[in-house]
Amino acid sequence: MNTSSEPTGTADSPKPGGNRAESTVVDLNCDLGEGFGIWQLGDDDALLDVVTSANVACGFHAGDPATLRRVTARAVESGVVIGAQVSYRDLAGFGRRFIDVPAAELADDIVYQLGALDGFARIAGDRVRYVKPHGALYNAIVDHEEQAAAVAAAVYDYDPELAVLGLPGSQWLRHAAAVGLTTVSEAFADRAYTARGSLVSRREPGAVLDDPDRIADRCVRMVRTGLITSVTGTDVEVRPRSICVHGDTPGAVRIARLVRDRLTALDIVPTAFA
Amino acid sequence: MNTSSEPTGTADSPKPGGNRAESTVVDLNCDLGEGFGIWQLGDDDALLDVVTSANVACGFHAGDPATLRRVTARAVESGVVIGAQVSYRDLAGFGRRFIDVPAAELADDIVYQLGALDGFARIAGDRVRYVKPHGALYNAIVDHEEQAAAVAAAVYDYDPELAVLGLPGSQWLRHAAAVGLTTVSEAFADRAYTARGSLVSRREPGAVLDDPDRIADRCVRMVRTGLITSVTGTDVEVRPRSICVHGDTPGAVRIARLVRDRLTALDIVPTAFA
Amino acid sequence: MNTSSEPTGTADSPKPGGNRAESTVVDLNCDLGEGFGIWQLGDDDALLDVVTSANVACGFHAGDPATLRRVTARAVESGVVIGAQVSYRDLAGFGRRFIDVPAAELADDIVYQLGALDGFARIAGDRVRYVKPHGALYNAIVDHEEQAAAVAAAVYDYDPELAVLGLPGSQWLRHAAAVGLTTVSEAFADRAYTARGSLVSRREPGAVLDDPDRIADRCVRMVRTGLITSVTGTDVEVRPRSICVHGDTPGAVRIARLVRDRLTALDIVPTAFA
Amino acid sequence: MNTSSEPTGTADSPKPGGNRAESTVVDLNCDLGEGFGIWQLGDDDALLDVVTSANVACGFHAGDPATLRRVTARAVESGVVIGAQVSYRDLAGFGRRFIDVPAAELADDIVYQLGALDGFARIAGDRVRYVKPHGALYNAIVDHEEQAAAVAAAVYDYDPELAVLGLPGSQWLRHAAAVGLTTVSEAFADRAYTARGSLVSRREPGAVLDDPDRIADRCVRMVRTGLITSVTGTDVEVRPRSICVHGDTPGAVRIARLVRDRLTALDIVPTAFA
Repeated sequence: MNTSSEPTGTADSPKPGGNRAESTVVDLNCDLGEGFGIWQLGDDDALLDVVTSANVACGFHAGDPATLRRVTARAVESGVVIGAQVSYRDLAGFGRRFIDVPAAELADDIVYQLGALDGFARIAGDRVRYVKPHGALYNAIVDHEEQAAAVAAAVYDYDPELAVLGLPGSQWLRHAAAVGLTTVSEAFADRAYTARGSLVSRREPGAVLDDPDRIADRCVRMVRTGLITSVTGTDVEVRPRSICVHGDTPGAVRIARLVRDRLTALDIVPTAFA
Repeated sequence: MNTSSEPTGTADSPKPGGNRAESTVVDLNCDLGEGFGIWQLGDDDALLDVVTSANVACGFHAGDPATLRRVTARAVESGVVIGAQVSYRDLAGFGRRFIDVPAAELADDIVYQLGALDGFARIAGDRVRYVKPHGALYNAIVDHEEQAAAVAAAVYDYDPELAVLGLPGSQWLRHAAAVGLTTVSEAFADRAYTARGSLVSRREPGAVLDDPDRIADRCVRMVRTGLITSVTGTDVEVRPRSICVHGDTPGAVRIARLVRDRLTALDIVPTAFA
Repeated sequence: MNTSSEPTGTADSPKPGGNRAESTVVDLNCDLGEGFGIWQLGDDDALLDVVTSANVACGFHAGDPATLRRVTARAVESGVVIGAQVSYRDLAGFGRRFIDVPAAELADDIVYQLGALDGFARIAGDRVRYVKPHGALYNAIVDHEEQAAAVAAAVYDYDPELAVLGLPGSQWLRHAAAVGLTTVSEAFADRAYTARGSLVSRREPGAVLDDPDRIADRCVRMVRTGLITSVTGTDVEVRPRSICVHGDTPGAVRIARLVRDRLTALDIVPTAFA
Repeated sequence: MNTSSEPTGTADSPKPGGNRAESTVVDLNCDLGEGFGIWQLGDDDALLDVVTSANVACGFHAGDPATLRRVTARAVESGVVIGAQVSYRDLAGFGRRFIDVPAAELADDIVYQLGALDGFARIAGDRVRYVKPHGALYNAIVDHEEQAAAVAAAVYDYDPELAVLGLPGSQWLRHAAAVGLTTVSEAFADRAYTARGSLVSRREPGAVLDDPDRIADRCVRMVRTGLITSVTGTDVEVRPRSICVHGDTPGAVRIARLVRDRLTALDIVPTAFA
């Protein structure tokens, strides 16, 4: 992902073999606005006090218009950068089921969601500054060339200034870079990694870590060294410019706060990338 | 609606007791993009050759993202101005059923739709330039103060430069003008009017005219004199800056073309208002 | 509602001027299955240990198929009677917004929901035994003749053996009785009543009671005497065969348990009506 | 029809190397009720005069409740057998996009649709008698073991008397037979077949035949001999108990009528299987 020789921009700061000084800046991102109508999910307000970037649901997997209005307004008040958490159209499945959408339709679905969220972000006084795909779409475009290219093209069509957030090595980041978008690599605070740097499936035991101290330790290490210990015990290089903390797990807010506090105590100031 | 002394703008050109010369400009608007997924409704392409303003569905009563992309692109190619045809959230009822949405939620629904369509309009090279509520919402905000005010506020929040299209004398136009939006009055080419200037309900016989020549004659008269003959035989003053032709009735395209041809033959050149 | 001279059945037990002995039987009903996909609402399992009748959401305001499967199965395991909590089609508004659906369409919406839930109820080993409209539909058909008649006709068409649950004096119960359905009157454990016997709007302060002891006291009194104290201090006659306890308020389960315990301590055994 | 020597039921009549006399009975099935709200698709009424089995959409890819009511009523009037055309939940994609739904959720989605349609079928005076999956689900469960098993289990749970309609050799028919459902093989009147007996993808040229005479000839041959000429020129054995005619293509009704007329002229009387 760190492609300093490429013509396209990149916000990924840690260089290969890298400059430790730059590693001391990291973003904290979290999924927000994931309620729908009467139904709530996660504590948006509490998390907006912790993170620096908000991946706001856009209505296709979650996020009714009233929620988008409220979350974007509070994000701007809190100085949190707004990103569009775009998804397959799947309220019933919370966007967690792969859908074999033809590329052109998928691109149009992305533009629709981007525009819808951006209207609220602009009313709140800012604008959408980056895109992070959600759930099954996030996972699909790690490898799915056509869908990855479609999402990248849609983002570029909508606004070539948008940054995109994703998994290092994914087709998504590769295609986004290819069309000229700024790419940002992220790592997950509480997800187990395979030795090859992919996420352990949620269906397997141990896929999600829940010990707050261990999570915070991992975050410090991944920022300082760019490394994370995989499930096999070997290190994988992740070098994240952003760390994703979860908002919908038990104790989510407490874990997110602990990560932030541990980082800031070490002079690693959470700083948005966009 | 014609309030030349008011600080807020208005695109309604014919003045009361007015200047006939100005009457020779009129816009032709039509509902477009009202398919959804596999389902089609109306002949968007043919109508884009006839009208000057396209009320494009935004996804809440009709209009999937692929349709929005295609219709906005073709509208820009055809030099047709794009308006947002916002609606209650009601695919199953095609937006034709009044929904008692609280004002704040309704405003958010409007912003969501505006942003979604605007993204496609901007990719097509233009932007959304006006708003026309659809179906039951259109009818409700003739009288419903709270919903009228909510829609007006939402449009203003999104973009105070947007014009709004509606029925002369409606609360919708009144509230829109009050917040500072440019208001535009329309008349319907093929709808019967009561003596008080409201539309005869579709549930009554004769509510929709179907004789192309009679429809074209009415249009010429309403542009030249500002008058339309009501069902009781008396004249009502409508002075439209825009005439709405329908796209979803049998023979819709032929009627729309006849109206346009009759007007242009009389040097009344269809001209967009926004 | 108690119209012993009518040919149609009625499960409302307390007779006018009535037989106190019969008053010692009362049903406890509660809305259940009101999550959707990832989103949960209320503690279905805990409430199934308390109530005798479950108003199960059918997918139009809440209630995805997996939830219907789970709740109906657990209701049957717990010996709780299953009712269909039918609604307007309105996930985004949780069925709390009046929709002006034409009567024929509304009837079809009701049949669809009834059939969908009934399939799960039958797989679980029982069947849907009664119908209770939800939210805005419940409120609308207190007075709305056409919609009340449409829902009653739909229930009768689907299964004339179904009982219907509603507000005493409502058009809904009147029309249901007129077509030959068994009608059941309910009262609300925690809702304030006007002097005329209608519910105080949720938009007014004090509309929902929250003192568990006071709620339990009211329930005991309404069962024993058929009376409830209105907001003006006067008594209104409610004579409920069923009491609705809420599942989605803070402390809902605790309140429901207290009501049940207080009643049983007085030998008023919660007993289903269908 | 009934092959009592087999462990599981099957309605597939033509035996391998088999009895030609039995081949002279064949069913004609067609997808119906595939409009939604204002949107229409296909000419349901005309097709109900031609086919013997109606695959009625159940609301997940198409088919609003009013449509289900109308189509089931007219099917019963016309003596056409009603089947449930179950689908992924995907109105926007008309059920034509594979969705990676977990098996348990898929089973629940199927039960929901079955119950919903069955309510209308029973009001019309009959009941759902068979199940045919739609679109992407139909294609997926040719090979997808888990989804095939889930759909079969759901159908059996709902009603073990239901027949299931599908592609010969599919996992769907295999799993349905394994749980004890009656299976029925179908062939497509107007779809090209590969040499291995699967359908040529719609994305390839020539996938759908449009010459009415050629289509009718194929149908006669597949009924008489059990064979169909594949795209490579070799014959594949299909031995259909039912032939699927399409309702949504140009000239659909005319082709369906021609197929029926050609068959009846040869004393092959279209006869339902359920």
